[in-house]
Amino acid sequence: MKRLTEEEINQKLKDFEGWTYAKKALHTSFQFENFKEAFTVMTRIAFEAEAQQHHPNWGNVYNELEISLSTHDADGVTEKDFKLAQAIENIVEATN
Amino acid sequence: MKRLTEEEINQKLKDFEGWTYAKKALHTSFQFENFKEAFTVMTRIAFEAEAQQHHPNWGNVYNELEISLSTHDADGVTEKDFKLAQAIENIVEATN
Repeated sequence: MKRLTEEEINQKLKDFEGWTYAKKALHTSFQFENFKEAFTVMTRIAFEAEAQQHHPNWGNVYNELEISLSTHDADGVTEKDFKLAQAIENIVEATN
Repeated sequence: MKRLTEEEINQKLKDFEGWTYAKKALHTSFQFENFKEAFTVMTRIAFEAEAQQHHPNWGNVYNELEISLSTHDADGVTEKDFKLAQAIENIVEATN
């Protein structure tokens, strides 16, 4: 899987509101109603990540969820990260 | 809920292998077989945290899980954190 250039990444990020590129990874964060809502979304993301065999670097405190995506083997961001980012967006939208 | 003193915390930590006290919180980390195993444990912890109405500050990357526990209202570590820490230990032991 080829690492995307910064130009390619920034072009793609135009379709991803609330996502940024920094330190060789994509980043976003979400705020939910409470812990249960946050973990419900995390569970859906976990199943999707496992299906894609591509996993997030993520952290949670109560209703807050922070996610970073990168492709370890490529030492940067690849199409795999955008595919998972899109799935995450779809899940969050569907559960709002 | 009263904040515990550093002496009280260190005394209690003698019963918690792999846990440390720093920056007003308890910290530990676990390594599992893979993402699925890590998230399975996270799910069990999530239910327990919700039942206790006390939630972890935690992060996961693939098979690694980092957990910090503190009591926001007390600006430090309380009995609540040790109660959740004990539940986490029980869950991890039961799933190994």
